[in-house]
Amino acid sequence: MALKVGRGAAAPPFLVMDVIAAANARAAALPPGAPGVIRMEVGQPGTGAPRGAAEAAIRALQVGAPMGYTEAFGLASLRARIAGHYAAKYGVAVPASRIAVTVGASGAFPLAFLAAFDVGDRVAMAAPFYPPYANILTALGMVPQLLPCDASTRFQPTIAMLEKLDPLPAGLIVASPCNPAGTMLAPEELRGIADWCGRNGVRLVSDEIYHGLSYGSVAESTAAAFSDSAIVVNSFSKYFSMTGWRIGWLVLPEDLVRPVECLAQNMFISAPHVAQVAAEAAFDCTEELEANKARYARARAALLAGLPAAGFDRIAQADGAFYLWCDIGHLTNDSLDFCARMLEGAGIAATPGVDFERDRGARFLRFSYCGPEADMMAAPGRLREWLGR
Amino acid sequence: MALKVGRGAAAPPFLVMDVIAAANARAAALPPGAPGVIRMEVGQPGTGAPRGAAEAAIRALQVGAPMGYTEAFGLASLRARIAGHYAAKYGVAVPASRIAVTVGASGAFPLAFLAAFDVGDRVAMAAPFYPPYANILTALGMVPQLLPCDASTRFQPTIAMLEKLDPLPAGLIVASPCNPAGTMLAPEELRGIADWCGRNGVRLVSDEIYHGLSYGSVAESTAAAFSDSAIVVNSFSKYFSMTGWRIGWLVLPEDLVRPVECLAQNMFISAPHVAQVAAEAAFDCTEELEANKARYARARAALLAGLPAAGFDRIAQADGAFYLWCDIGHLTNDSLDFCARMLEGAGIAATPGVDFERDRGARFLRFSYCGPEADMMAAPGRLREWLGR
Repeated sequence: MALKVGRGAAAPPFLVMDVIAAANARAAALPPGAPGVIRMEVGQPGTGAPRGAAEAAIRALQVGAPMGYTEAFGLASLRARIAGHYAAKYGVAVPASRIAVTVGASGAFPLAFLAAFDVGDRVAMAAPFYPPYANILTALGMVPQLLPCDASTRFQPTIAMLEKLDPLPAGLIVASPCNPAGTMLAPEELRGIADWCGRNGVRLVSDEIYHGLSYGSVAESTAAAFSDSAIVVNSFSKYFSMTGWRIGWLVLPEDLVRPVECLAQNMFISAPHVAQVAAEAAFDCTEELEANKARYARARAALLAGLPAAGFDRIAQADGAFYLWCDIGHLTNDSLDFCARMLEGAGIAATPGVDFERDRGARFLRFSYCGPEADMMAAPGRLREWLGR
Repeated sequence: MALKVGRGAAAPPFLVMDVIAAANARAAALPPGAPGVIRMEVGQPGTGAPRGAAEAAIRALQVGAPMGYTEAFGLASLRARIAGHYAAKYGVAVPASRIAVTVGASGAFPLAFLAAFDVGDRVAMAAPFYPPYANILTALGMVPQLLPCDASTRFQPTIAMLEKLDPLPAGLIVASPCNPAGTMLAPEELRGIADWCGRNGVRLVSDEIYHGLSYGSVAESTAAAFSDSAIVVNSFSKYFSMTGWRIGWLVLPEDLVRPVECLAQNMFISAPHVAQVAAEAAFDCTEELEANKARYARARAALLAGLPAAGFDRIAQADGAFYLWCDIGHLTNDSLDFCARMLEGAGIAATPGVDFERDRGARFLRFSYCGPEADMMAAPGRLREWLGR
């Protein structure tokens, strides 16, 4: 008898996975000595964990630390260190008791959504957006509510957009810097949104995973500074360059601390122990991490200088993260096909915009600039040649 | 304005966490030289990862492997190794394409449940049961359906119990060896249940996390041998002694491979990279792991020999895992209070049965025997003295 498959199984794949596979195949098929494929589709730093973090893990393993489960919310020392980070970086007092160490930011979202929302609840977010927001909500029976955004608001939501929603959603996800657009909310904008959410009973979820990677035009601010009811999501994957270690964290409002702890006990038991040890040490690796960031900044500057002449002249304000969100509506109305041809013709992989917004994304693509610096520097020339500019 | 809290936040805590906290407090308050607290409440081996596994992780970190995301289903080499494990251990051909490496078995359950079931679906399981089965289902809006079991069926479900269900559930979870009872299904029983599930359109989820830890009375068998539609859950946490590394796996039926892959991309991205490297090496650590198992076997034998004279003479068939499920109905009708008094009076921590079955669990407790061997050997004497036998 045929067995049913749950509706949760309908989560769409990331199309970028197909781009990655095609880029791998093309790179493998290149003759020796041919120029390699430039990888601008990936959302993870090419650098590994900072040396001091890896060395802390090595030391713990060498002395034979048993690496059992930690408490569900993580090692007390790591939670204290993260709390200290809020004091040092933002001047915000967040008690360690409100910090939950999670299995990456990915593992944080289901905990946050299940604790704050119910089946059927609508949760608003800007579009384009990071696809797992919507896919996780959908898998959990919740309903993503898209707020179409464009360059006029830096691809970020506004209070005016929120006030038009009727009925109001149960929650709002914001991200600053955001993926894919790389744009930010100014501190006064984030404060305004946090205040509005508090006044209107809308639970704010602030994805701050790209904090530490911004380039000066807009200041970084945390929702934890503006709201006692907001949920803040962060991670060691981006600034700290520790993607595969799978360590993120939540700053929880008091009312969700115990509910999320019970959910985490059941769904995760704890985040990986050795990775928590490494993450704690990563806070002491500022020099190496700032050097990574400086490399992103140079790549960003070179691309912003070179891409317009190559034909990519409609780029969202590149405030932070390591992404450039390019309007390519003058070049194509099928970004999936365009990216496939660009890989074939220019040897450059990028993420088609449809991964981030089904319809309007057909006119956009995302370049990631966290790859090797020389590759990033070479990209505009290749693109100029390919497009015959 | 007060914000809502989702129904998913209603997951009950593990009461054993309070026991652990009380045992820690008691241990910390003991005068120097006093006999320590014997920890029989914990469900994790006191041993760390096998040396060869830790050394593989150390080597990978020393050479500076970047430890980025792996593919959503894990390193190809680890998946192949797990597939080989099914051939070598069970004589079952499982292609690596059906293996998904997950963030522990804990991370496997939400993927399995979301892929196979919908909000409102009922999923049956024996009671007593591992609480996260029910708590994760409930958080996802699904409905646990308990099948009360007792010593007459080794605390395992039977086809007769399943046939009484009307309507039939969407799924059935079995575990062999199981937690908390430590009992097993014989191969012909598991085959019968798998066949019945297949004939009746009930998705079988077989939790095989304690495989490798059984003591000879019943043979271990995998549902993957009996069913093409069953979901098998396993982990490196128990036999392989790698709890805090957070690596588990699923054997998926063909129809759920792609759905689970898409869910995993969204909800986890990948399992921790360095832990996958260590897990792969753990397959070569048989000698150390079998020595761990021999230690559990000696502790089990000593407890089974000594506990009856101490007053604990109604113990479920201790087929596997590292648990003894004791009927203490002749001693108390409040296992939570009994465990608190036993910690105070005998210096022995155990898990109250109410953690595993709300009502009937008041007459049971679970002893775990994966702690230090000398402690396990000393436990019956302390209990005998405390109960005045």
